[in-house]
Amino acid sequence: MENLNKTDIGLVGLAVMGENLALNMADRGWNVSVYNRTVPGVEEGVVVRFVNGRAKGKSIEGYTDIAEFVTSIATPRKIMMMVRAGSAVDELMEQLFPHLSEGDILIDGGNSNYEDTNRRVVLAEKKGFRFVGTGVSGGEEGALNGASIMPGGSESAWPEVKPILQSIAAKASDGTPCCQWIGPAGSGHFVKMIHNGIEYGDMQLIAEAYWVMKNLLGLDNGQMAEIFADWNEGKLRSYLIEITANILRHKDRSGGYLIDKILDTAGQKGTGKWSVINAMELGMPLGLIATAVFERSLSVQKGLRETASKQFVCRRSQAVYNKSEMVKDIYSALYASKLVSYAQGFAVLQRASDAFAWNLDLASIARMWRGGCIIRSIFLNDIATAFEAKDKPKHLLLAPYFKNEMQLLLSGWKHLVAQSMKEELPVPAFSSALNYFYSLVSVKLPANMIQAQRDYFGAHAFERTDELRGQFFHENWTGHGGDTKSGTYNV
Amino acid sequence: MENLNKTDIGLVGLAVMGENLALNMADRGWNVSVYNRTVPGVEEGVVVRFVNGRAKGKSIEGYTDIAEFVTSIATPRKIMMMVRAGSAVDELMEQLFPHLSEGDILIDGGNSNYEDTNRRVVLAEKKGFRFVGTGVSGGEEGALNGASIMPGGSESAWPEVKPILQSIAAKASDGTPCCQWIGPAGSGHFVKMIHNGIEYGDMQLIAEAYWVMKNLLGLDNGQMAEIFADWNEGKLRSYLIEITANILRHKDRSGGYLIDKILDTAGQKGTGKWSVINAMELGMPLGLIATAVFERSLSVQKGLRETASKQFVCRRSQAVYNKSEMVKDIYSALYASKLVSYAQGFAVLQRASDAFAWNLDLASIARMWRGGCIIRSIFLNDIATAFEAKDKPKHLLLAPYFKNEMQLLLSGWKHLVAQSMKEELPVPAFSSALNYFYSLVSVKLPANMIQAQRDYFGAHAFERTDELRGQFFHENWTGHGGDTKSGTYNV
Repeated sequence: MENLNKTDIGLVGLAVMGENLALNMADRGWNVSVYNRTVPGVEEGVVVRFVNGRAKGKSIEGYTDIAEFVTSIATPRKIMMMVRAGSAVDELMEQLFPHLSEGDILIDGGNSNYEDTNRRVVLAEKKGFRFVGTGVSGGEEGALNGASIMPGGSESAWPEVKPILQSIAAKASDGTPCCQWIGPAGSGHFVKMIHNGIEYGDMQLIAEAYWVMKNLLGLDNGQMAEIFADWNEGKLRSYLIEITANILRHKDRSGGYLIDKILDTAGQKGTGKWSVINAMELGMPLGLIATAVFERSLSVQKGLRETASKQFVCRRSQAVYNKSEMVKDIYSALYASKLVSYAQGFAVLQRASDAFAWNLDLASIARMWRGGCIIRSIFLNDIATAFEAKDKPKHLLLAPYFKNEMQLLLSGWKHLVAQSMKEELPVPAFSSALNYFYSLVSVKLPANMIQAQRDYFGAHAFERTDELRGQFFHENWTGHGGDTKSGTYNV
Repeated sequence: MENLNKTDIGLVGLAVMGENLALNMADRGWNVSVYNRTVPGVEEGVVVRFVNGRAKGKSIEGYTDIAEFVTSIATPRKIMMMVRAGSAVDELMEQLFPHLSEGDILIDGGNSNYEDTNRRVVLAEKKGFRFVGTGVSGGEEGALNGASIMPGGSESAWPEVKPILQSIAAKASDGTPCCQWIGPAGSGHFVKMIHNGIEYGDMQLIAEAYWVMKNLLGLDNGQMAEIFADWNEGKLRSYLIEITANILRHKDRSGGYLIDKILDTAGQKGTGKWSVINAMELGMPLGLIATAVFERSLSVQKGLRETASKQFVCRRSQAVYNKSEMVKDIYSALYASKLVSYAQGFAVLQRASDAFAWNLDLASIARMWRGGCIIRSIFLNDIATAFEAKDKPKHLLLAPYFKNEMQLLLSGWKHLVAQSMKEELPVPAFSSALNYFYSLVSVKLPANMIQAQRDYFGAHAFERTDELRGQFFHENWTGHGGDTKSGTYNV
């Protein structure tokens, strides 16, 4: 009775993602209350404009008063917050708390730091509410037509929010919704963070493929569009490859190719950086994504690059390369490097799962990413299959399917990287991935030298190949100095 | 009068670094009080053992009572804390505070996080004391005979601590002490952190040089020692190159080369990782150090590598390389990559200096690193000179001297990297540096593609080459979806 005439869900924040999610919900038959802060004279009419515009005729009610907004929603209330990550989320929560009832559910759909979400879950639960931190990937298109949604937090909230979230999620080709429960605390946002990191990597890899085609093969935009479109019919089939073909074909109002008029300074919003920082904190290599993040930073130093390019002129040979051969090599470099990147990313997820007792289901996460999100691709099916195998692989590249793929790709990949180095053309992510792969498959690495140096100058001690693991030895290398081992003192 | 019979300085923490610094101070004529926590039955006798052992006959007084220890020091007291970074420093400070007098100076000589030092300077000053956070580099050897010391924090403390700190510092070849005031707050520890990051990079680069010699040229330890010793007579002259030659020659008690018995799993204590994290937070590329940190992480995954090495066998050619040619190429790769690493590190220092208003003197920092510390080398003279030039270079690699060096080194460097890629041998840091260099000198990078993609799926907008900087454009790529720009909403 008390929920008579109430809406099914509330949504705060009418930027493009919020607007589109509200429209998506309404299109799936849900009644939606929307609210946006209104600064008189500045944002006046944000709600009105939406309700009378794109939301016209849909089951969407607009509110400019937060109390009325909350009251309009059926209990236990589900309120999705689509505001800028950071303090804005905390401020909004404080504004909402006085109006909520026990058991109400706040859903943070922004790109929040998972540690903030850890904290907010505890805060909301202490007050008798529930909190879900969910990654939402898919951009404005996905928000409108089906996103990949990665919820975690208060587990009892899952049955309540599941029907709505799964209804607005994308469906994979087998019909399953790209939205499943991830785990406790900030695990949903952690998984979304790694998703975004992988997205940084994928974009950098495509950019390098484009750059080699353009600079070593001299292909024009139309030819490159055809190659990407062709790749989109094979194992690289994915949203990012598809839009790359579209981007290369796209002409602006002047009739020229837009890609050639876009400035080469790439922005970033933090989730790539966070992925790397958290991998570092967990002691895990995530070199491909780190390379992508650093390359964006360097792209922004446009003035410095302009100066430097006048002082150093890259000497490119006049060699005429066989187009179909080199395109195959580029394909190998792109595909193999992408495999490395996903292997690194999933290894970080596994380590986080172990460290924080999240019990993540890597296969389910791979399946969730097959639709809706920016990195959706068919090869996520193969990843899910690999993680579901009886003998769960220790590392994605060791799964039989991928092991075989790598063996087929290696020759073209290494040739392409070697050639690019000779031609003075940067392929930082292709290179980083290749070096990681070589290191991964090296039973011996020169870390013995590093350990020797650390013991020489800092008495850090080392393990020996001829003794059991876990025993540390210090050598008196110089014949003088103390025999005290380092790091034994604690106040 | 009140300072009659008092000592000049106190030192807490008798692990190897603390012991050696105390001995160093005593040898320079200072009277030193030392204190170590004593856990009965566990650490009983740490102080006694030192005073009756290595400190015997020196001007060093031992204390096991903290109040008596503090009382024994002349005011304003200088108390150097050589305890494990982290909460141990905070705990020790809390133990010391009740015994201090106004104006007393606490000196943290551990590898503290600079943000902790920021906080501790404020905390100590609020209580009427002064706080100096100083990096101390040089390991046990440097602590005993002259370290590189990088103090920052309460500036009024500098004249008080300067005589003692400069006396125990190493002297560069021109006689100047490797200890100068760095700047306010945690700047001393920030500079030490970047120093350590650079050290990670240097060690990884040497390890790669060693690895190529061993695996592609098949040299034995004696031959490799000779090459490093030879390099130590030239532009690469440095402590790490010198000890690498010593390490390669070193035989253990069994009469065999120790290097071959050291396990290839490299530890880390956090400052390399912190360098990368802080560079990321500042939006600056620091790829070489990141590579070194990740490679250490991968070295630790020894079991995984053993499994992987059985599944993938690296195909090395049977090529016989010309030894003197390839050694020259390795030299080029090592030297050029080292230049890149220092250029990246100093660029981060400059950015931090700008961001935190520290007014760092990069030339002075380079000079400070010429002696005592782990990365001491003669080429730091050239770096200091470059930063002192009237036209201060925008980037270290653009300084005329280094520009010229890079042009000479590039050919061998790129050839070595290309060859290693073909031979399936990891040279991750050589590669990372080379790709960074190529990107740096590229007036155009493929970041236009990344911006196009970001705008396509997320309405993130882009700048145009045919419009003024600072204007952002959004294209309606698909012909549908909203025309709302992303990120305009704030609660």
